Amino acid sequence: MNRIAQQLAFIVEIDRLKSVLRRSWLCDRSRLENSAEHSWHLATMAVLLAEYAESGVDVGRVTRMVLVHDIVEIDAGDTYAYDDAANGSREARESAAAERLFALLPEDQEAELRTLWEEFEARATPDARYAAALDRLQPLLNNDRSGGGSWRSHHVTRAQVVERMEPIQGALPAFWPTVLEIVDRHCALGNIGA
Amino acid sequence: MNRIAQQLAFIVEIDRLKSVLRRSWLCDRSRLENSAEHSWHLATMAVLLAEYAESGVDVGRVTRMVLVHDIVEIDAGDTYAYDDAANGSREARESAAAERLFALLPEDQEAELRTLWEEFEARATPDARYAAALDRLQPLLNNDRSGGGSWRSHHVTRAQVVERMEPIQGALPAFWPTVLEIVDRHCALGNIGA
Repeated sequence: MNRIAQQLAFIVEIDRLKSVLRRSWLCDRSRLENSAEHSWHLATMAVLLAEYAESGVDVGRVTRMVLVHDIVEIDAGDTYAYDDAANGSREARESAAAERLFALLPEDQEAELRTLWEEFEARATPDARYAAALDRLQPLLNNDRSGGGSWRSHHVTRAQVVERMEPIQGALPAFWPTVLEIVDRHCALGNIGA
Repeated sequence: MNRIAQQLAFIVEIDRLKSVLRRSWLCDRSRLENSAEHSWHLATMAVLLAEYAESGVDVGRVTRMVLVHDIVEIDAGDTYAYDDAANGSREARESAAAERLFALLPEDQEAELRTLWEEFEARATPDARYAAALDRLQPLLNNDRSGGGSWRSHHVTRAQVVERMEPIQGALPAFWPTVLEIVDRHCALGNIGA
């Protein structure tokens, strides 16, 4: 297959990310969010909150990273952050997915997307830490606006939420007081357990 | 309101773009596409097809442009490309929407997003022409994969489709043969009218 045909095949394949449902609700609670629109929300946030990123973060690169960070879910499905059993098998499922999906692209782009995805997963660089903070902040906002959202329906505790939000404290510290205010308000409302 | 509160208010408000339905179908024809996931698809394509953009295109800037190009639809709704009556009122509806929505942001970011959106709409710069080509190519691919999609259900003619796709000929000429192949195949199938 020629280069353009490979690229078009990948572009068509990733349409399926629009059908991968997450556990978080839209703010208006009309339905669950999918991973494609979630990725759009993160990419837009990466641009809007660039001024708060630590020095050394390449915001354009983070934007590309969050655009592709969930593509492996097309094969592996979305794994709920607070589901320990599912998280045990997540790495193997997602590695197999990355192997198949990115290989649809020409080799240079396969390598580029795989690097971005692996770096996101390892959370060890300033770019990946900023991306992880965005990936925590967005569902927090959606849970807040949707009346406790998936926290409530999955009986999540304060300790679990605070641990999950920790990348925000490191990479977007300006937002940490907002995170704690939201968490404590939903504890008081009974949407997050003690 | 302080700067962070303004930014968070905007980030929450744009969640509503996930509920704006377009006329195009997902490739698997399971449902209509929404404007947030469409924007994600375009942004990812902007990155993947960068090598075909004309010289002078700033792909990072185009990525930001397509991420925000449909936000006005939160108030103005999606206007179907082949609906002449609705397109007559589109400009006024979208200007009012831009006025309200971007003003949720701090002034510097309001100006930045408004500039990107106005430039996209005017289609007069290399960045905007590349963005427009992506915005035509993606629904073409989705219409192709979904059995003729909105072409068929809205009785669109070959002349209308070719005119609509024209930005691809200018800004992504490497894809023009593919465009014509798809259009002619769907004419032969009766999905696009003579």
